[in-house]
Amino acid sequence: MSDPGKPSDSRAAAAALDAADPLAPLREEFLTGDDGVVYMDGNSLGRPPRAVLDALREVVAIGWGERLIRSWTEGWMDVPLALGDRIGALLGAAPGQVAVADSTTVCFYKAVAAALDARPGRSEIVTDAGNFPTDRYVLESLATQRGLRLRWLEPDDPTHGPSAEEVAALVGEQTALVTFTHVDYRSAAILELEAITRAAHDAGALTIWDLSHSVGAVEVALDAAGADLAVGCTYKYLCGGPGSPAFVYVRSELQESLRQPVWGWLGRRDPFLMGPGFEPVEGIRAFLSGTPPILALHALEPGLALVERAGLGRIRAKGIALTDFAIELADLWLAEHGMTVASPRDGRRRGAHVALARADAVELCRRLAERGVLADYRAPDVVRVGLSPLSTSFAEVWDGLDVLRELLAA
Amino acid sequence: MSDPGKPSDSRAAAAALDAADPLAPLREEFLTGDDGVVYMDGNSLGRPPRAVLDALREVVAIGWGERLIRSWTEGWMDVPLALGDRIGALLGAAPGQVAVADSTTVCFYKAVAAALDARPGRSEIVTDAGNFPTDRYVLESLATQRGLRLRWLEPDDPTHGPSAEEVAALVGEQTALVTFTHVDYRSAAILELEAITRAAHDAGALTIWDLSHSVGAVEVALDAAGADLAVGCTYKYLCGGPGSPAFVYVRSELQESLRQPVWGWLGRRDPFLMGPGFEPVEGIRAFLSGTPPILALHALEPGLALVERAGLGRIRAKGIALTDFAIELADLWLAEHGMTVASPRDGRRRGAHVALARADAVELCRRLAERGVLADYRAPDVVRVGLSPLSTSFAEVWDGLDVLRELLAA
Repeated sequence: MSDPGKPSDSRAAAAALDAADPLAPLREEFLTGDDGVVYMDGNSLGRPPRAVLDALREVVAIGWGERLIRSWTEGWMDVPLALGDRIGALLGAAPGQVAVADSTTVCFYKAVAAALDARPGRSEIVTDAGNFPTDRYVLESLATQRGLRLRWLEPDDPTHGPSAEEVAALVGEQTALVTFTHVDYRSAAILELEAITRAAHDAGALTIWDLSHSVGAVEVALDAAGADLAVGCTYKYLCGGPGSPAFVYVRSELQESLRQPVWGWLGRRDPFLMGPGFEPVEGIRAFLSGTPPILALHALEPGLALVERAGLGRIRAKGIALTDFAIELADLWLAEHGMTVASPRDGRRRGAHVALARADAVELCRRLAERGVLADYRAPDVVRVGLSPLSTSFAEVWDGLDVLRELLAA
Repeated sequence: MSDPGKPSDSRAAAAALDAADPLAPLREEFLTGDDGVVYMDGNSLGRPPRAVLDALREVVAIGWGERLIRSWTEGWMDVPLALGDRIGALLGAAPGQVAVADSTTVCFYKAVAAALDARPGRSEIVTDAGNFPTDRYVLESLATQRGLRLRWLEPDDPTHGPSAEEVAALVGEQTALVTFTHVDYRSAAILELEAITRAAHDAGALTIWDLSHSVGAVEVALDAAGADLAVGCTYKYLCGGPGSPAFVYVRSELQESLRQPVWGWLGRRDPFLMGPGFEPVEGIRAFLSGTPPILALHALEPGLALVERAGLGRIRAKGIALTDFAIELADLWLAEHGMTVASPRDGRRRGAHVALARADAVELCRRLAERGVLADYRAPDVVRVGLSPLSTSFAEVWDGLDVLRELLAA
């Protein structure tokens, strides 16, 4: 147990924050085990909403079991775009611009290929070496296939990531594509989506934003920012389940000219006619390829509904409060043991997780897990504390960091 | 009701066939509605095994809800290859050659791109215009991207599809890839997989087989035939659920040289190190891209288990018997109304569905559905009668075709 100290230094302070939290009742909407785990990894895999079990039971027994093949014309074909519109609403995107399909990696591959095709003759792609691995690998693949050059932006300030000025200094008439992750998966830094998009556009380049650590956690204004394309995953703050389908956003005005490379029957006009020759259907549906994963799409709906019910404003406020609290405790308890905060200290510039850095992070994560505290190790030296606003309490943050303090003090 | 006729012409004959069917008890393992539907579309979307509900409940409550992120190192990472090995066993493939991932369309895209990369300098792809639409569209896309020529084989005998002789006559030193669907989605014709593969190899080309209408219904011997790559879907005879994940087979000896284009973190060596630069992991795992769809993979397992329990030999025998029975009834009842059998009459050359052709097929399917008989229309003139051996009874065939007879006689 900790000594009493300043208010936030006592568990009672955490309990008081929970008592005042308007989102606290939503924690009851999630399934939890009875092993008392402190879960600080909801930004990697969100907890399951209780309603997922009913949603799956219904789609299996009724949609699949009773209606059988008829379900395809009784609603299933609409699901990828209906869920897409709802996800779009969380991203500042008007309807008709988001589809749910495939994995994030496949969505990103399609988006990158489409963007590069739309900028023929340009030879460069701009991203940063700190970008999420699968994005980097997809870019490497397409750059290799097409003989393009990857320009790795190295930000002066790694904690805050690439700035719009740095992007503006790097892009030019050879830049086909500028792509970053909006909320950095390690530092939680929020990049300047609108200003970077403008810098890319000033050079005539297209942009793709990876919103995996943004959607359902921070505000995004894709339409207002003039964003071109975006992708993201739904198993983090949207709680869609392990490996749940991803989404892709394509700005309305670009949908006619951008063409993704995986031409499949679900992206064709009149798919069930099975006609000769691929003709893309109008709109965002042309970014679909194969048969939509219906069970997984139904499992994704309850988490999305909880985010809608909570409201993004309250979610964002709690995300800042939770991470502020974690940083306060880290300063009080962990700094003296050489563990530093590697995330932006200004809550407005930080997503819903916090990076705590120390050389033995991998070992610390292992020992935390032994004590029932789940956090993610991120190479080379980060204990990543993910604080999903819908399912994480302030007491949980206190308990988790209290264990970390004990480990460091031992 | 029908008049009594020769033995098969009475419903009692159908009931007798059911009584003698060793697979009949397995029908109880499937969820069915209580609306008495006659389901002749199990080759499009297999019925749900009852065990799917328990499998989903367990993976949601335990794997996802209790073990949370830990599940990734407690087994989830193995699921795509473990299920792949089991599917491989149904295809005559030794372990380590099949991965379950993505949609069939995405798997096919990866396979085609990998094969084309392995045959640089060759300019042609051979397929047939009757191939499944999504396969044709993917081929069109990649041919367009790479400036290749698609050679559309037009078989002399559309009912039986392309022969090995026809393939041998078309391929040559410019052929990079030969790809067909093993069991035709309309006619159910089984192509000569081994002989066509040999003809392709004689020309130095690679092959990709689409096994969507084969897996779990007919015997396939990929290893023995020297096949190179294959893909297939799992929501037909494997009953994996709507839009369930697909599979991809890559022959062991080719895995080191073939490289798929969607480089993602799950196909990288040490994915959780998230290191710089893509290095493909060894083996079939390199054909994975994004995060595996864990819920959908767990929903797929029970159907696969039922196929294993039934045994492919018994499934195949029943598939022939069911389709023989349907053809016998069609000859007796439907031929006089101008409806013809557009599938091979030799059961050994036919998968587990039957194509019945008449100009008003689309209208007939609509009216069958009104009567609770579900079959698929396939343009331009086919009522496709799919007879999934695990869940279809002979009485169901009799009942469905009896309604069709009534509609034609009216």
